[in-house]
Amino acid sequence: MAIITLTTDFGEKDYFAGAVKGAIYSELSDVRIVDISHSVAPFHISEAAYIIKNAYKSFPKGSIHIIGIDSELTPENKHLAVKLDEHYFICANNGILSLLASEIKPEKIVEINIHGKIETNFPVLDVFVKVACHLARGGTLEVIGKSVSEIKYLKQFEPIVNSDKNQIIGHVIYIDNYGNVITNISRKLFDNVGKGRDFSIKARSVKFDEIHETYSHAINFNVEKDQRKEEDGKKLAVFNSAGYIELAIYKSNPTTVGSASTLFGLENRDTVTINFE
Amino acid sequence: MAIITLTTDFGEKDYFAGAVKGAIYSELSDVRIVDISHSVAPFHISEAAYIIKNAYKSFPKGSIHIIGIDSELTPENKHLAVKLDEHYFICANNGILSLLASEIKPEKIVEINIHGKIETNFPVLDVFVKVACHLARGGTLEVIGKSVSEIKYLKQFEPIVNSDKNQIIGHVIYIDNYGNVITNISRKLFDNVGKGRDFSIKARSVKFDEIHETYSHAINFNVEKDQRKEEDGKKLAVFNSAGYIELAIYKSNPTTVGSASTLFGLENRDTVTINFE
Amino acid sequence: MAIITLTTDFGEKDYFAGAVKGAIYSELSDVRIVDISHSVAPFHISEAAYIIKNAYKSFPKGSIHIIGIDSELTPENKHLAVKLDEHYFICANNGILSLLASEIKPEKIVEINIHGKIETNFPVLDVFVKVACHLARGGTLEVIGKSVSEIKYLKQFEPIVNSDKNQIIGHVIYIDNYGNVITNISRKLFDNVGKGRDFSIKARSVKFDEIHETYSHAINFNVEKDQRKEEDGKKLAVFNSAGYIELAIYKSNPTTVGSASTLFGLENRDTVTINFE
Repeated sequence: MAIITLTTDFGEKDYFAGAVKGAIYSELSDVRIVDISHSVAPFHISEAAYIIKNAYKSFPKGSIHIIGIDSELTPENKHLAVKLDEHYFICANNGILSLLASEIKPEKIVEINIHGKIETNFPVLDVFVKVACHLARGGTLEVIGKSVSEIKYLKQFEPIVNSDKNQIIGHVIYIDNYGNVITNISRKLFDNVGKGRDFSIKARSVKFDEIHETYSHAINFNVEKDQRKEEDGKKLAVFNSAGYIELAIYKSNPTTVGSASTLFGLENRDTVTINFE
Repeated sequence: MAIITLTTDFGEKDYFAGAVKGAIYSELSDVRIVDISHSVAPFHISEAAYIIKNAYKSFPKGSIHIIGIDSELTPENKHLAVKLDEHYFICANNGILSLLASEIKPEKIVEINIHGKIETNFPVLDVFVKVACHLARGGTLEVIGKSVSEIKYLKQFEPIVNSDKNQIIGHVIYIDNYGNVITNISRKLFDNVGKGRDFSIKARSVKFDEIHETYSHAINFNVEKDQRKEEDGKKLAVFNSAGYIELAIYKSNPTTVGSASTLFGLENRDTVTINFE
Repeated sequence: MAIITLTTDFGEKDYFAGAVKGAIYSELSDVRIVDISHSVAPFHISEAAYIIKNAYKSFPKGSIHIIGIDSELTPENKHLAVKLDEHYFICANNGILSLLASEIKPEKIVEINIHGKIETNFPVLDVFVKVACHLARGGTLEVIGKSVSEIKYLKQFEPIVNSDKNQIIGHVIYIDNYGNVITNISRKLFDNVGKGRDFSIKARSVKFDEIHETYSHAINFNVEKDQRKEEDGKKLAVFNSAGYIELAIYKSNPTTVGSASTLFGLENRDTVTINFE
């Protein structure tokens, strides 16, 4: 059974996601629709990229991923259908594909041209659903668009390594549900530049000189439990499950005691610097 | 496979929606359950109506829609099952049906009488699920209720046209995930009254004399991109994808720079006036 | 078709829930995944317990329930797979099972030992999914873990009855989507201790001497409707659909006029006392 996933900024409340699901079921009686997220911040392309990039890999090859972010058709924002890493993605040419394709070259990109004269405020419903159902039926990309090689690039999100190769300047790209702060510095880049040297990570007033493999690695379980209260709330750097350096607070609750984001004062796009010795 | 959709004010956190899905799967092994929204504001009948009205049409004919809003059985709030536009709706007689049926006459309305002596704080689970599964199995409305012709009406939500036919007074009926402000003035009413005349739309301190077909129609793409910064955040009126006049801000983000709702100071039930020349 | 449910603190936005669903579909083409809740407060074990305890019973026997709360593997937080009430639960040994099993003895508990050398920050994806799919295929608990009899207990959440049997001291365990305040005092305990005597319930400054069967029982429908305005917003105690005493406000809307929680000033863990005459 074909799988169609949805990643959008529609929110949890509006009728948009429901209407999209209804339209898919109206075209295909035998399909699996999976919500990845409808809570991407409105028009937040890099957030959407982080979410879909880390979710799609778990799905079976051949899955079809609709990305409903900033998807209105304009002279500068054409609609794309893409085959990448044996998955299909349907999105606008607003830069998100460059974030998805930063490490993996797309096998095929087409600019969707089935629109005819459709003018719509709901392109996910009126265009993306049709393309997704076409692909779910085994249709090819060639039928619904013309092949393109150039896509819009968003470059500003890549970390910078200095010429002496002893510094990485990255940025915060995502704050997760626990309020933990995810940087765009991957373990791979860290290892390549650092080559095992000592280092310090700085972001505003916080500083770390160790990166843990898991959250609980930062915790000393040999101390008696009742003397260990202060470990909840411990600040730490960790390689997160997506492979990025994350600045975290152990077992934080953003709605009560605060989180890494609020306590470190770090938000999207803030700078995170690693200096190697 | 039968489709049962859920539109409720249960929220995303509580066990209510999960329990309802479990109960449906316990009765029917082969059914498709689709969440439309669980984030309707508590007891907000007109919000629920706006959502289900604009979502159900995308679903296949014969789909069954459970509306779990203000659904406790009381002497004044009986339970209804309805066939309308070849879809089934299960809801309380709290006025929501009058909003759904404002343009389309229901084919059949029954007052559900399978309750026996059930006293319940969870009528969606204990009553609506049973009715939905009955319908999903191909059962008829007659079996689970007695036919009624009178339903509770909520009239206050309809826009008013003055006797000179040069003014429409409508209201805000919904604020969407982008903070855009949706009025109850439909394109159809606007066209019928306006007949192509010039007009101005007023709501608090904002004023518009044009309604765009899409959001990006308000944007001048001929200006060089770097001189076009001010276009993000532009205020505009648009016919939205549901067919209503919407007061919007181009690419707004309610959580950061604000939205039409916050920047125009418009909330649910506020007045929106159109004067024709 | 096997059913796998998800109850987590992943939130609605992050890629976590999407990745978990993708991984399940990658292992099993024919399975039903049901979201119970992803909005449990981070690391809030008793909230998760309240939700899953009241949702799982609606599902068919044999359903598999993944509980993704505080699930990182540590020396003190092993992973468990449990058969209880003919349902399967996969969770960490962080006390949640003691809350689930407070009334029903588990048939079988195993400590999961399929980890090998897996070090992971995403145990739900890397461990719980594998266990769930194994069970969904009809596999046994014995294959994926060693039987254990001792589990971690969280005792503080049980209400206390005094030695004279004329007082129950309970606590707030949950605030629901309507802002209503749920206590850990069950109808069963109330009936067993009270034996029909008069009583008063006190929590901060609110006091009740009646517990209603349904919300609307507190409302006098014999009064003319236009003289009944003050009934919306009426405060009441009720046996809720989960069987607990709940302190509520009739048709409250937490985002506008306030809710029982905000108006009574009651939060999680606050004390609720019942005195019998």
